[in-house]
Amino acid sequence: MNTFGQNFRVTTFGESHGVATGVVIDGCPPGFQISTDKIQAFLDKRRPGQSELVTPRKEADKVQILSGVFEGKTLGTPVCLLIQNTSMISSDYEELKEVFRPGHADRGYYEKYGIRDHRGGGRSSGRETAARVAAGAVARCYLENEGIIINGILSSVHGETTREGIEKAIIKARDEGDSVGGVVSLVVSGCPPGLGDPVFGKLDAMIAFAMMGIGGVKAVEIGSGVKASAMTGSEHNDQMSAQGYLSNNAGGILGGISTGQDIIVRLSIKPTPSIQTPQHTIDLAGNDRVISVKGRHDPCIAVRVVPVAEAMMALVLMDALLEMRKIMPDCGQEP
Amino acid sequence: MNTFGQNFRVTTFGESHGVATGVVIDGCPPGFQISTDKIQAFLDKRRPGQSELVTPRKEADKVQILSGVFEGKTLGTPVCLLIQNTSMISSDYEELKEVFRPGHADRGYYEKYGIRDHRGGGRSSGRETAARVAAGAVARCYLENEGIIINGILSSVHGETTREGIEKAIIKARDEGDSVGGVVSLVVSGCPPGLGDPVFGKLDAMIAFAMMGIGGVKAVEIGSGVKASAMTGSEHNDQMSAQGYLSNNAGGILGGISTGQDIIVRLSIKPTPSIQTPQHTIDLAGNDRVISVKGRHDPCIAVRVVPVAEAMMALVLMDALLEMRKIMPDCGQEP
Amino acid sequence: MNTFGQNFRVTTFGESHGVATGVVIDGCPPGFQISTDKIQAFLDKRRPGQSELVTPRKEADKVQILSGVFEGKTLGTPVCLLIQNTSMISSDYEELKEVFRPGHADRGYYEKYGIRDHRGGGRSSGRETAARVAAGAVARCYLENEGIIINGILSSVHGETTREGIEKAIIKARDEGDSVGGVVSLVVSGCPPGLGDPVFGKLDAMIAFAMMGIGGVKAVEIGSGVKASAMTGSEHNDQMSAQGYLSNNAGGILGGISTGQDIIVRLSIKPTPSIQTPQHTIDLAGNDRVISVKGRHDPCIAVRVVPVAEAMMALVLMDALLEMRKIMPDCGQEP
Amino acid sequence: MNTFGQNFRVTTFGESHGVATGVVIDGCPPGFQISTDKIQAFLDKRRPGQSELVTPRKEADKVQILSGVFEGKTLGTPVCLLIQNTSMISSDYEELKEVFRPGHADRGYYEKYGIRDHRGGGRSSGRETAARVAAGAVARCYLENEGIIINGILSSVHGETTREGIEKAIIKARDEGDSVGGVVSLVVSGCPPGLGDPVFGKLDAMIAFAMMGIGGVKAVEIGSGVKASAMTGSEHNDQMSAQGYLSNNAGGILGGISTGQDIIVRLSIKPTPSIQTPQHTIDLAGNDRVISVKGRHDPCIAVRVVPVAEAMMALVLMDALLEMRKIMPDCGQEP
Repeated sequence: MNTFGQNFRVTTFGESHGVATGVVIDGCPPGFQISTDKIQAFLDKRRPGQSELVTPRKEADKVQILSGVFEGKTLGTPVCLLIQNTSMISSDYEELKEVFRPGHADRGYYEKYGIRDHRGGGRSSGRETAARVAAGAVARCYLENEGIIINGILSSVHGETTREGIEKAIIKARDEGDSVGGVVSLVVSGCPPGLGDPVFGKLDAMIAFAMMGIGGVKAVEIGSGVKASAMTGSEHNDQMSAQGYLSNNAGGILGGISTGQDIIVRLSIKPTPSIQTPQHTIDLAGNDRVISVKGRHDPCIAVRVVPVAEAMMALVLMDALLEMRKIMPDCGQEP
Repeated sequence: MNTFGQNFRVTTFGESHGVATGVVIDGCPPGFQISTDKIQAFLDKRRPGQSELVTPRKEADKVQILSGVFEGKTLGTPVCLLIQNTSMISSDYEELKEVFRPGHADRGYYEKYGIRDHRGGGRSSGRETAARVAAGAVARCYLENEGIIINGILSSVHGETTREGIEKAIIKARDEGDSVGGVVSLVVSGCPPGLGDPVFGKLDAMIAFAMMGIGGVKAVEIGSGVKASAMTGSEHNDQMSAQGYLSNNAGGILGGISTGQDIIVRLSIKPTPSIQTPQHTIDLAGNDRVISVKGRHDPCIAVRVVPVAEAMMALVLMDALLEMRKIMPDCGQEP
Repeated sequence: MNTFGQNFRVTTFGESHGVATGVVIDGCPPGFQISTDKIQAFLDKRRPGQSELVTPRKEADKVQILSGVFEGKTLGTPVCLLIQNTSMISSDYEELKEVFRPGHADRGYYEKYGIRDHRGGGRSSGRETAARVAAGAVARCYLENEGIIINGILSSVHGETTREGIEKAIIKARDEGDSVGGVVSLVVSGCPPGLGDPVFGKLDAMIAFAMMGIGGVKAVEIGSGVKASAMTGSEHNDQMSAQGYLSNNAGGILGGISTGQDIIVRLSIKPTPSIQTPQHTIDLAGNDRVISVKGRHDPCIAVRVVPVAEAMMALVLMDALLEMRKIMPDCGQEP
Repeated sequence: MNTFGQNFRVTTFGESHGVATGVVIDGCPPGFQISTDKIQAFLDKRRPGQSELVTPRKEADKVQILSGVFEGKTLGTPVCLLIQNTSMISSDYEELKEVFRPGHADRGYYEKYGIRDHRGGGRSSGRETAARVAAGAVARCYLENEGIIINGILSSVHGETTREGIEKAIIKARDEGDSVGGVVSLVVSGCPPGLGDPVFGKLDAMIAFAMMGIGGVKAVEIGSGVKASAMTGSEHNDQMSAQGYLSNNAGGILGGISTGQDIIVRLSIKPTPSIQTPQHTIDLAGNDRVISVKGRHDPCIAVRVVPVAEAMMALVLMDALLEMRKIMPDCGQEP
């Protein structure tokens, strides 16, 4: 279950404190240009240590193309991208060997697998998202050729919606050894109509799957989102004219199929669970413990979800685009 | 893309005004009891014409088991359930042959496939959900044996949260030829810990996929949902003690794996798009038109989403349960 | 595991003595013509009781289209085809309730599922192939529009390769209460180059999978087949000239990709296991028993494998054709 | 289409003359021991340059575990195994940039993808099988704990069946600049009954798929194989007694389900297509050319198919074993 997509199939691997993190992309169309530089540019946006709003942890995150590209172009064979893990300080996590962190997957992994790599979350670490961003970068190279542009922003934090309010909220949380949640908004422009397949391959369902699968996301909204429940049909319906749609409550997707309007998505993200504030928890033996999580953590993971959400959107659209190619209305007997 | 699930694989078929609607369930475990009566009981909850809050349209929705059951028990072979379409009045839809209804999938289907069954939405009709409810009923027979209980309620309509307010809002909309949106809340009790698979088979992601794939759903929230974005980590983290979790902001799922607490999900549903209020639209040739949708429509589809959402939850849990069986911590060399 | 194909996804259902046998085709392209008559014509070729070489058992095998077709054309939605079971004499099988037939799946099903429909093989019956033939008929309607023609013949029986020898061998076996094996040869003409995907979606591998999955098939050969092992490279290589290939030892597939030459496949099929000759076996309790299988059985199932093998070939090619559409060499940035 | 398996999902990547070859295994059960040494031991059996019967080409083939293993045990997370490509002499292939080799996938790849890595076959090279052997080694660690043992031998070459005859045939072909075909026989002992799923997940069909997907394989036989077609039912049926089966014409699989007897498989493999003997071919422009393939090639690839066929068998059995876990006859309501 580490593969995303049916056509543009992305398989990620790697634990946060293992040898390397990476991804294999199967089903990548042949003949388009990608380069280490382009992929690196997207990874650099995700990389921590770039401002005071994020963890000061340094991760080099240098990507290497191992296969699937020849003389700068994709071969149609699997593209493997590798990122060596370099700045891992496992000793930071020695204390966590026996204690479950609240709000983390520690306990779930342990109960499910009976074994876990306790160092930095192992497979459940946010570090795994570097591989998603790398894969998303490949998809974006392709999508941009088709005129499809994906933009994500951090639109609110702890209820604040201005840049100043957002920064203050994050710095306050950091200074107090606490953390804050936020909202990420995505807009896709240039998406052609027709993407998405009824009834269990709907584009909005695929987006919800992709976004809710990002660590910390607790809500996914498309277009009108939660507000739809308080509206009337005459308000909500997007009427049409020969000039186009007259509104976009649908968020660019109707009946699971893209309409050609902008795709509008919002994600609500919980506060970073790793906080210094002491919390009640238990250890492997089930005994009560108190934990104060040390280490270099983001005070607001929503900041760093932005490039990951963009990448996941790229993977969904790429997959849907290839799927759509199978359907060709002019394939019948008649001209 | 008419199949849901990897292990308990549910494929639905049928257009709203075709011969029949149905479902094939592949991967159904052998040896447990199901009966036409049990499945019919769930279908009857979904059936319209039962109160003044829903469409007066009559649908018999009598289910027939065609395969996979022998002497009252599942064989482990595909279970096919069939519902004949009986009360279809296609002439109601003659007008819709040439005009796209706002808020519906009409235009998307036409642009994508170049052909559509215009009668009552064809494949995109809510009628398809009868097949999902039938499949969900089979899953629920199994899950209830495991102590897993799914409950859904209509928790708000047009902002109203009391039974009286909800009913008034729906009747007002109906009388005005308009419609209203609503919220459906689901609670799963008795779910064992360990369901769901990192990183692209997370239980919450699967639930989001299943729920956003129900017609009209515009937002999916798990646990704290959209509120998570305005909280701090010290508020949001579910602390643990030897007696259990001290809160449930996670909504029963952490790191994509069920914790054993109740699973909490909320869906925001748009107002029924079929309304009598005249609306701007276009026809097949792209000309401006005005449409007022006739016929017997639900003033609030959220009412009827309840059993469908329960069914989809059952399918997700059933699939995750079979998946979990592949992972057995004691499968190694050591005792 | 009752679904075949990744793109043209065919799910069969039904036990031999249940209510009905059928198939759902998901991923069927929209807009091409199919009719009950066309499908019925293929089913009639498979139907028993048509000559003295096959079982005198009568099966009406009337097919009904339940969904996915509107005004004679496919909608792009799932096509469900249903065949009611009519001529089932379950009492023939009462004796088999407790005894496993040699050469049959009886014991395997029982040990695996702990339950089985003992009447006529249930799900493992050759009757399930009616659903495959029906699905194959839909694929063939499409493939024939593309100029792809599939032809199967019974090329040998019990070592005999002339029509006269074949008929004598079958009648002799029938008269002796025994049965005989045979070989079915398939030729596909008009197949375009480029079908099949390295490294785990090779066209020859898909064909082998499809053919070995037909009951009774014990060997699958492509092109030179078993003879390849006794040849030299200079004999076996298919040299090329500007006029085309100079031979076809490859059987139309090289490196897993179709070359555009005829696809050549041979299947070796075991003798019908249901014979009147007394045989040693065991019962459910594991006790020694002797069995003489009564009923109306084919003396040579290879005869009836012909239309089934053609149908499976159609499903493989259809699936590969849709897959190939995702790969378009001109999709990059350059003209 | 570079992924094999539904449960133990193996994705290979890498071109023969790219940076590296590797594999990601998703769905690997947690908690069992694997080590670089164990995997290396299997790779060493496949490695060329070990006798005069194979290519003198040197490939170090040193495997590295990048993820999924912690303190010597599998974590249940994806296992990535990497083999750096070291001994690649691309200049050997400069001549092949414009000319298609007979019997190779060169032309098919070019026509399908419009681009190819011409150096040494790129993705279609036998080198890709190193990744399969590495993945198979992981599966075999697990299967051996379950008592399942896989053995492959080269049983004939150019019609010769004795060790002496086989060696002579290979050396003769090598000395003449030609090549020879051969047969590989596999026996699996200790396989439990119940593996394999009707009707499209049959164990023999999965084996045929896996084996026909190995480069050069032209025929796959199970048990009696091609001989079945010349037998009678009374000869072919494997009768049963309380002591067990009285013969094994089935080759250990009946109705697609393993019987518990030895699984018997034979592969017929074509002669190596790379030969020095001059052959007619065409170039990219479609012009007639004559080619004599230089380089260090195996005179009989069947020799080196042995470890690959063993590995593919391990992958099939591992996948089927995990699949079987979903079916548990005692899962119903009754004790």
